[in-house]
Amino acid sequence: MDEGQRIAMIARVLSAERTDDAGIELGIGDDAAVLAAPYARGRIVWTIDEQVEGVHFRREFLSWRDVGWRSFMAAASDIAAMGAAPWCALSALVLPDDVADAALEQMVRGQGEAAAAIHAPVVGGNLSRGLVQGTLSITTTLLGTCERAVLRRGARPGDKLWIVGHVGLAAAGLRTLERRLDSEGPLAVAVAAWRAPQALIAEGRAMAAVAHAAVDVSDGLARDAGHLAEASGVCIALQEASLLEDDALVAASVAIGESALDLALGGGEDYALLASSSVTIPGFRCIGEVREGSGLVLRDARGAERPLPASGYDHFASR
Amino acid sequence: MDEGQRIAMIARVLSAERTDDAGIELGIGDDAAVLAAPYARGRIVWTIDEQVEGVHFRREFLSWRDVGWRSFMAAASDIAAMGAAPWCALSALVLPDDVADAALEQMVRGQGEAAAAIHAPVVGGNLSRGLVQGTLSITTTLLGTCERAVLRRGARPGDKLWIVGHVGLAAAGLRTLERRLDSEGPLAVAVAAWRAPQALIAEGRAMAAVAHAAVDVSDGLARDAGHLAEASGVCIALQEASLLEDDALVAASVAIGESALDLALGGGEDYALLASSSVTIPGFRCIGEVREGSGLVLRDARGAERPLPASGYDHFASR
Repeated sequence: MDEGQRIAMIARVLSAERTDDAGIELGIGDDAAVLAAPYARGRIVWTIDEQVEGVHFRREFLSWRDVGWRSFMAAASDIAAMGAAPWCALSALVLPDDVADAALEQMVRGQGEAAAAIHAPVVGGNLSRGLVQGTLSITTTLLGTCERAVLRRGARPGDKLWIVGHVGLAAAGLRTLERRLDSEGPLAVAVAAWRAPQALIAEGRAMAAVAHAAVDVSDGLARDAGHLAEASGVCIALQEASLLEDDALVAASVAIGESALDLALGGGEDYALLASSSVTIPGFRCIGEVREGSGLVLRDARGAERPLPASGYDHFASR
Repeated sequence: MDEGQRIAMIARVLSAERTDDAGIELGIGDDAAVLAAPYARGRIVWTIDEQVEGVHFRREFLSWRDVGWRSFMAAASDIAAMGAAPWCALSALVLPDDVADAALEQMVRGQGEAAAAIHAPVVGGNLSRGLVQGTLSITTTLLGTCERAVLRRGARPGDKLWIVGHVGLAAAGLRTLERRLDSEGPLAVAVAAWRAPQALIAEGRAMAAVAHAAVDVSDGLARDAGHLAEASGVCIALQEASLLEDDALVAASVAIGESALDLALGGGEDYALLASSSVTIPGFRCIGEVREGSGLVLRDARGAERPLPASGYDHFASR
């Protein structure tokens, strides 16, 4: 297919997945998408995320639908973390020569299915040829709307720290694939967590009413809790026992022979939501508390505390 | 620098360039940017563009500031083509290992200068490590606002076709660099057109009041005029003599020994604006007319007409 044919195919696949057209006046096919401004007093949140082959994913571990789905959900998780409702999305694809038309169609189908799952239709994008033997990349930008955005700053001493979703499970899934382990039982759950993550949109909306601050956990709990602590100018104390109250994580960690705690603190790509609130957040579980000070501490079952380095995934740390 | 340090540096460089904060409640540093919805009855336009090293640019032909500037302007041109005012932008960078911190800073400075030039501050983004010896890419997504967006569809038989900006000049500049010609005199102008294009924002705003349809000319006049004709369901007749009424283009074409007409019809990356209107558009010049029918025709000085293939740049045509 030439560029025009590919764009037409993409528009056809994505329009089949569309479930919600609120405020969308013009979608794929012009120089830009056209939207009606949502409402006069509301807030718009806006994020962009790029997934690069060989850095964020390896084709051999994913179906083409997975590649599309997970790239979309990774971006959508930022909308969830702001407590916003997704509105719509644009996608920019860099396609090396070895991506066949059928593979592209499956990848776009995965994007469209993820978009439909969170009611954020893809209303435009950009298609670039990659280099011969170049790397595939998928960029997703999403708009969301809300009455009030939940920021990383705003956590207050005295708040409890709340989480929804797994942390560490996706990392266990990736380890399973990298080591070519049998992905059955608990490891099947872990592999699915890595391959097909879910942006926790409804949970983010529930949180928005009461949370003082929030972040999504994409780079490991220690790192993202560290972001929350730093942005808010507080100390965060995590309860070790609470982090291990995740049967799926514990079972997967046993099966791969790694520490569940290390996976939770250092493993990324789960897209859990971490929030600070003085009251219970429905559906979330409490894993710690917010104090005066700075940095992170981990409190073990006997009440002993130790400082925790903000580990996790730093794209440039290995330089 | 690690990822956090690079993000801090980028935020610092970009904040120095910021000139306009209308409606921007939260910029770089959280999970998403937060904007105040612009106004209840307005339209939001939204575009994304990605520039990939080796496909859209070669580092050897550009300074790092040029790389940043032109990637931003390429995206902004789509906002101009909708007749909209730029609002703000996000940027996603994929940085291979051989991009030094100082080079990154210069590139971001170029983005920031372009953003300041059109009053569209960069309010967030994403930073990804590229592969070792991988390719650099810069993705820019822009929001704009307008009362009414000018689409590609809407050109009416009887309209005149209007253009502002050069077409073919940037292609002459790229040829100059590729052939390592002396870039003096007319070729200096051409090289500058390729290296540092300008999104024609003010011209787009002027056009919005009267244009029935518009497109920016990024892939060559024949191809983009073809897009306008196809989207509007009309035939577009271009006047050959009018296309040659561009002294800079003619001088550059003579200096590189190529046909000015071929450059205008097939050369991309000028970011002129092409519009259809029944009345004069201030600052634009008339280069043809809109008729019943379909496709493109070229009318020579004696009035003879020939059909014109929609040539120009197709990212996937060479497959």
